[in-house]
Amino acid sequence: QIAQLDLDRLDRRGYPEAVFCEGKTADQVGRIATALADQRQVSLFTRVREEHVQAIHAVLPDAAYDATARIVAWPPTPPEPTGGPVLVLAAGTSDLPVAQEALLTARYLGRHAELVVDVGVAGLHRILAQVPRLRAASAIVVAAGMDGALPSVVAGLVAAPVVAVPTSVGYGAAFEGLAALLTMLNACAPGVAVVNIDNGYGAGHLAAQIAAP
Amino acid sequence: QIAQLDLDRLDRRGYPEAVFCEGKTADQVGRIATALADQRQVSLFTRVREEHVQAIHAVLPDAAYDATARIVAWPPTPPEPTGGPVLVLAAGTSDLPVAQEALLTARYLGRHAELVVDVGVAGLHRILAQVPRLRAASAIVVAAGMDGALPSVVAGLVAAPVVAVPTSVGYGAAFEGLAALLTMLNACAPGVAVVNIDNGYGAGHLAAQIAAP
Amino acid sequence: QIAQLDLDRLDRRGYPEAVFCEGKTADQVGRIATALADQRQVSLFTRVREEHVQAIHAVLPDAAYDATARIVAWPPTPPEPTGGPVLVLAAGTSDLPVAQEALLTARYLGRHAELVVDVGVAGLHRILAQVPRLRAASAIVVAAGMDGALPSVVAGLVAAPVVAVPTSVGYGAAFEGLAALLTMLNACAPGVAVVNIDNGYGAGHLAAQIAAP
Amino acid sequence: QIAQLDLDRLDRRGYPEAVFCEGKTADQVGRIATALADQRQVSLFTRVREEHVQAIHAVLPDAAYDATARIVAWPPTPPEPTGGPVLVLAAGTSDLPVAQEALLTARYLGRHAELVVDVGVAGLHRILAQVPRLRAASAIVVAAGMDGALPSVVAGLVAAPVVAVPTSVGYGAAFEGLAALLTMLNACAPGVAVVNIDNGYGAGHLAAQIAAP
Amino acid sequence: QIAQLDLDRLDRRGYPEAVFCEGKTADQVGRIATALADQRQVSLFTRVREEHVQAIHAVLPDAAYDATARIVAWPPTPPEPTGGPVLVLAAGTSDLPVAQEALLTARYLGRHAELVVDVGVAGLHRILAQVPRLRAASAIVVAAGMDGALPSVVAGLVAAPVVAVPTSVGYGAAFEGLAALLTMLNACAPGVAVVNIDNGYGAGHLAAQIAAP
Amino acid sequence: QIAQLDLDRLDRRGYPEAVFCEGKTADQVGRIATALADQRQVSLFTRVREEHVQAIHAVLPDAAYDATARIVAWPPTPPEPTGGPVLVLAAGTSDLPVAQEALLTARYLGRHAELVVDVGVAGLHRILAQVPRLRAASAIVVAAGMDGALPSVVAGLVAAPVVAVPTSVGYGAAFEGLAALLTMLNACAPGVAVVNIDNGYGAGHLAAQIAAP
Amino acid sequence: QIAQLDLDRLDRRGYPEAVFCEGKTADQVGRIATALADQRQVSLFTRVREEHVQAIHAVLPDAAYDATARIVAWPPTPPEPTGGPVLVLAAGTSDLPVAQEALLTARYLGRHAELVVDVGVAGLHRILAQVPRLRAASAIVVAAGMDGALPSVVAGLVAAPVVAVPTSVGYGAAFEGLAALLTMLNACAPGVAVVNIDNGYGAGHLAAQIAAP
Amino acid sequence: QIAQLDLDRLDRRGYPEAVFCEGKTADQVGRIATALADQRQVSLFTRVREEHVQAIHAVLPDAAYDATARIVAWPPTPPEPTGGPVLVLAAGTSDLPVAQEALLTARYLGRHAELVVDVGVAGLHRILAQVPRLRAASAIVVAAGMDGALPSVVAGLVAAPVVAVPTSVGYGAAFEGLAALLTMLNACAPGVAVVNIDNGYGAGHLAAQIAAP
Ligand SMILES: Nc1ncnc2c1ncn2[C@@H]1O[C@H](COP(=O)(O)O)[C@@H](O)[C@H]1O
Ligand SMILES: Nc1ncnc2c1ncn2[C@@H]1O[C@H](COP(=O)(O)O)[C@@H](O)[C@H]1O
Ligand SMILES: Nc1ncnc2c1ncn2[C@@H]1O[C@H](COP(=O)(O)O)[C@@H](O)[C@H]1O
Ligand SMILES: Nc1ncnc2c1ncn2[C@@H]1O[C@H](COP(=O)(O)O)[C@@H](O)[C@H]1O
Ligand SMILES: [Mg+2]
Ligand SMILES: [Mg+2]
Ligand SMILES: [Mg+2]
Ligand SMILES: [Mg+2]
Ligand SMILES: [Mg+2]
Ligand SMILES: [Mg+2]
Ligand SMILES: [Mg+2]
Ligand SMILES: [Mg+2]
Repeated sequence: QIAQLDLDRLDRRGYPEAVFCEGKTADQVGRIATALADQRQVSLFTRVREEHVQAIHAVLPDAAYDATARIVAWPPTPPEPTGGPVLVLAAGTSDLPVAQEALLTARYLGRHAELVVDVGVAGLHRILAQVPRLRAASAIVVAAGMDGALPSVVAGLVAAPVVAVPTSVGYGAAFEGLAALLTMLNACAPGVAVVNIDNGYGAGHLAAQIAAP
Repeated sequence: QIAQLDLDRLDRRGYPEAVFCEGKTADQVGRIATALADQRQVSLFTRVREEHVQAIHAVLPDAAYDATARIVAWPPTPPEPTGGPVLVLAAGTSDLPVAQEALLTARYLGRHAELVVDVGVAGLHRILAQVPRLRAASAIVVAAGMDGALPSVVAGLVAAPVVAVPTSVGYGAAFEGLAALLTMLNACAPGVAVVNIDNGYGAGHLAAQIAAP
Repeated sequence: QIAQLDLDRLDRRGYPEAVFCEGKTADQVGRIATALADQRQVSLFTRVREEHVQAIHAVLPDAAYDATARIVAWPPTPPEPTGGPVLVLAAGTSDLPVAQEALLTARYLGRHAELVVDVGVAGLHRILAQVPRLRAASAIVVAAGMDGALPSVVAGLVAAPVVAVPTSVGYGAAFEGLAALLTMLNACAPGVAVVNIDNGYGAGHLAAQIAAP
Repeated sequence: QIAQLDLDRLDRRGYPEAVFCEGKTADQVGRIATALADQRQVSLFTRVREEHVQAIHAVLPDAAYDATARIVAWPPTPPEPTGGPVLVLAAGTSDLPVAQEALLTARYLGRHAELVVDVGVAGLHRILAQVPRLRAASAIVVAAGMDGALPSVVAGLVAAPVVAVPTSVGYGAAFEGLAALLTMLNACAPGVAVVNIDNGYGAGHLAAQIAAP
Repeated sequence: QIAQLDLDRLDRRGYPEAVFCEGKTADQVGRIATALADQRQVSLFTRVREEHVQAIHAVLPDAAYDATARIVAWPPTPPEPTGGPVLVLAAGTSDLPVAQEALLTARYLGRHAELVVDVGVAGLHRILAQVPRLRAASAIVVAAGMDGALPSVVAGLVAAPVVAVPTSVGYGAAFEGLAALLTMLNACAPGVAVVNIDNGYGAGHLAAQIAAP
Repeated sequence: QIAQLDLDRLDRRGYPEAVFCEGKTADQVGRIATALADQRQVSLFTRVREEHVQAIHAVLPDAAYDATARIVAWPPTPPEPTGGPVLVLAAGTSDLPVAQEALLTARYLGRHAELVVDVGVAGLHRILAQVPRLRAASAIVVAAGMDGALPSVVAGLVAAPVVAVPTSVGYGAAFEGLAALLTMLNACAPGVAVVNIDNGYGAGHLAAQIAAP
Repeated sequence: QIAQLDLDRLDRRGYPEAVFCEGKTADQVGRIATALADQRQVSLFTRVREEHVQAIHAVLPDAAYDATARIVAWPPTPPEPTGGPVLVLAAGTSDLPVAQEALLTARYLGRHAELVVDVGVAGLHRILAQVPRLRAASAIVVAAGMDGALPSVVAGLVAAPVVAVPTSVGYGAAFEGLAALLTMLNACAPGVAVVNIDNGYGAGHLAAQIAAP
Repeated sequence: QIAQLDLDRLDRRGYPEAVFCEGKTADQVGRIATALADQRQVSLFTRVREEHVQAIHAVLPDAAYDATARIVAWPPTPPEPTGGPVLVLAAGTSDLPVAQEALLTARYLGRHAELVVDVGVAGLHRILAQVPRLRAASAIVVAAGMDGALPSVVAGLVAAPVVAVPTSVGYGAAFEGLAALLTMLNACAPGVAVVNIDNGYGAGHLAAQIAAP
């Protein structure tokens, strides 16, 4: 036996378990997909590689796959949205995969969610142009690498919590996301909830909880 | 001129500015208190030392001071609570100052908030005894030092977001809160929003936002 | 001459030398296998790659190979178990390789050893269901990555020592096992013996010593 | 209420709770001592300061106090020893406080325990002279700072587990015990169980468990 | 002989040597002041303590002392300004000492320099109100602690180089300025020149060079 | 939509936006090139891979490509130089790619720029032979890995600012440029402006600003 | 021009320049070999890859190549040894490449040098058996990874300086040689000269200088 | 018994044991001084505080005490020098204590040793003026903080080994000597032997060994 799925989680917490595929073999993921096929729960497979997708599709042929987010979801259509709107921001184009993972996670967990890309602070007019939309959101996810400065700016402009997800975008003293992580933990504006580097899944999940009905 | 208070913050964000006193002289804090006295806003002074308290009391004699949380608040009585309940947990007795800072911040920002102390995972029956109360909260703050394992356990039991605040309690490889911080960022349960080490103020603020009406 | 095997170790310490293959060429490992073939000692080759396995099998054709644990053992059958039982836990499926390395090491060093997979703290009921088995063990190995919180919980439930082995499972601020390592070193429950990241061999060896007759 | 003592720990685990005093006020420690006075359990107070000792003595006047180990124990006399012998080594004179904390913890938890000081590897004849005594022990605690090399050498000589406790002795690139910690985690001899820097309490506790009857 | 003053530096580089007092005794600083008294060069003593000031005043009674910047300068009046204007920004009130050290250094090295305090990004309207003044400067120094986000925003608004000086303001994961330092090194806007944490002297010197005639 | 180019930057700051290609797909870079083709601005693509070059050339066939610097520029010819001269130094041959990136950036942003290679401090006569040229420059870029000592030496010899760019050249305790970065941040000579590890683009941009007319 | 060889080094220092090939292209190394072919100096190329060897052999066909040490030397025969003997120790088989690099460097710089492999402290009898040879050496190089404990033990036994070279052998908390590096810097025995991780060249060079006539 | 002096060290290694006083009480140091009084060996007490000096003088009233180096030596007069000359350099005035500790250690271990202060690379003419003296030394100690660049420059000028001792002089990203330590480990010139941060004792000892007859 290679896994004990936490199928009780949906009852206990209101959100289903997700399968973190990075350290698993295709065979293991396939067996987990088989176990999930019997359940009527939303099933998310995160950080999939090509071989994982194939193993899942062998069991759940209609599962939806997003190559940018590296997410497989089943059933393929997200549930009808409830709760408040979630807004996902990507500071730069390179932060897109993480932002997309957050976006899809929020949607599959039942929220209305939208994405805005490339609104980093180096060209401040871009984020300032979004202020009305920012203020309409119940939770805002901000994915940013390099200096990770965008969440500080956004949190200073809105009442809703900002879920900040540092990305490993950058090089040198970005230290694979550490620089952005520290920036966000030290945001001079309160209201910033930090999750792990590149953890788009966790960011989307947390935003879904915050914006829950 | 030594400060430009962000008095507009209450309008813009719904929560007033707080004054971070750690790096300020008593004279500077006194001058800021004078500026705030003219406003009718809730005013929080965080991380105060004895000398700061005196400088504030010289201007705002009825300001409330909590020595454990190192917070001064004015007006002294928190507003009538709105929104959902906030529950604050301290893993050990030594985490009390940070937990208390979160508790008072949430209360002065308008939430109903309660505190439970010494429910660390080494004696698991203590946190399990709190499950009904945990499930009743709209947001849960967990302050923990050393291994920082409590938020992972709590987040696995509830639907509401957990605001995890690592504390600098511990020694050696606790690295002044770094160990607990990393634990929380890597929580195996989703739904954990991390703030800076010892940042009870930020944790309470975030919980207040999450539990907002 | 490329190695001086510590063949005296079995006499001096009661446990035979093991060959750490990671930094060695297949040719070197083959020559060491040849030297060991003359001895009647249990021989363990750890962290083998395909090419190492072939080089060993050329000399010791009946050697047992476990691809998950990356261990080759000779003679292929473990000795009759003595001492107390060892229980090996894997927090998640991805921790399996390290847990399996510990399991086989304990068995080849002469202990009865069993494995339980996927009992991480995010779904607490899974580890609580194991309490009777936990309490029956003379030594418990816990392999966990990400937050590394499981050993703290287990050590709080039992009298026997817990050998905690952090794994490099996770990403971002898991820092390739550093987060789990720090968690374990700071376990709020006493009775946690920490070994190196991914060191399943060392964990199994230590458990075998603790559970020795 | 400032604490929820884990009084069940003795039943559940066979070893009583200890009170970590470092982050507690004298008042808090005094109240905990009062709660413990009602129990008939061995009570250990670790990392005490002068003010803690006074607060405890006000409640438990006959409690034993060791200034080097910074431990207060009550009842003052350790229980009759059971199980196997524990040997505690200090690599240098400066490691004495940590070694003494381990020694007393092992004794109060019911083991026979002895101490040998200043047997660091720079003068190898000193540890070699102890080999018979090392081989007679059921568990060996080694406290060492600076290079932390002693546990590797000791573990290579004996069959019993070595509990290695790095100390913060040293300066510069000793990084307050980090250097010794890393050395011990990477010991080239298996059989080394590492605990936190300066954690004499944890080392003594673990040794007591390993040498339990 | 305790020092070999680099008196040639003014000729070679156009800027005089400064005396870094932190690691020096009052006696040493006094002897250096005596050596400088013979020269007709601008002399700066940085990071002075009270005892240093007294030792300098014993030799150069008219030397100017600024307690916030911890700088002593002689002759007391800065030279007539040449070159372009330097603007110094402090993100928060607590960054004032570092900003003031930069301000005075720039002035004593011959530039016109002005200071603006408390324009951090949490209340973005404050820095936006300064844009005309920012665009008029030949070099801008930005002192910021915590998230260190201000230089990224400023550099995105102007043509002149931004000299970013991280401060040790903050706590926890600010790691005494490391977080701000990394933010600045990874600024998503080009044009950011980073100097050492709390190095107001170096920032002011660099700004003076950039704005040189 | 995958990007919002900051086309306003040229007006606002005087220097055009550059496209950081490392984290982008060839398809994304191609679409950005298309958007830039409509503008009459200097366009720089940095850290390109082969596939990026092809995608750009499909849109801008005459774009210039430098394989050492990994830069694509369009229009292919740099503008007529204005301002003062920029001198770029590489401490060793292995620092050439970073130095070349700085050189080309300065040229495409409108400065006269020249390169000198292999003048590290281990053979001091090499840099001493360049003193006249060093003194003629308005800004000096120094690229150095390993010990990163060259900027300290150069800054001690000249009046102009030195832009120090640490490179990831080296191994072991070079920690991929961290050693050189720290050296430069702690340069004992003032006048050193540090940019991110391997950030030749940023160094060249900053030098162009410093040497602007 | 891609390099300025420090050909004067032999005169100035008595030891010729060596070419560090890791960051260089084959073409660059070939051009450097051509430049060196005109000189009558010992030429060492370190950290070569296959392609470098070919480029050198195209110019210096009789150059000696050692694949373990990754060194190419020309002329192929080392000079007649002068000075005292150098002894090179490898703690384990995996440290052989670094040890061999030190061995060959010492020989090509003119010393008599010998190698002993696999004498780590886990089996102490192996190094104790070498004491007479250790005491006969004028300089001892010790290459060790993992805990890096061997230099402390060796330095405690001899009068000659010990050149300690940490290797990146190990995993997890070995942190690619950092653990061994810190151990060596904190050696409890004086007389340990530390060089960079995996820097066999530097170790051999230093030993050659220490043992010079 | 609190210590086992390694009195055999003089016979075994040719250099006597030294007593590291930092972590010892005055009482312990006094008892060690008593034990040493019986021997006729050179005795060094390093890193002494005032109270240690008094405890030593109570036993060895004629012991020599140097307050800058924090060394007590007995007998008070160093032995007649043998072997080659040792030269000790301090990069800045603040490095004097470490340099002086090295100087006195070398002298008490039997070498002729001299000191040169304030020859850092920011004013290169100062070290260049010392070249003849540098070339006359058998071993050179270089103490430097901040950028730690001086050993690279010195090692490039001489044939003798350079013992580099990083000091904790500096602030911010000097990280208490870490920056200088890394610089020295990565010195671009070979021939640099690194010891621990602030380890003047170890540097002087190593230089004495290198310059031994
Ligand atoms: N204890 C605290 N920890 C973190 N941030 C704080 C704290 N107290 C106040 N703040 C925030 O820090 C900002 C900077 O404060 P100041 O330095 O007073 O301008 C305030 O606007 C608050 O939002
Ligand atoms: N010196 C110590 N070091 C590490 N852990 C300790 C120490 N003393 C007690 N403990 C453990 O820390 C737990 C937390 O203690 P407390 O903060 O008092 O609730 C106790 O239950 C002990 O198991
Ligand atoms: N506050 C400061 N921070 C960094 N460097 C400084 C500071 N003050 C002076 N310096 C530089 O440090 C060098 C060393 O000073 P000293 O130790 O006095 O010889 C001086 O030549 C200055 O260039
Ligand atoms: N200042 C120092 N820094 C580093 N090592 C030292 C120092 N002083 C003495 N030692 C060494 O540290 C060893 C341990 O000393 P002790 O703790 O007195 O037994 C001695 O044998 C010396 O070789
Ligand atoms: Mg962009
Ligand atoms: Mg407790
Ligand atoms: Mg699972
Ligand atoms: Mg000793
Ligand atoms: Mg403010
Ligand atoms: Mg070169
Ligand atoms: Mg071996
Ligand atoms: Mg100086």
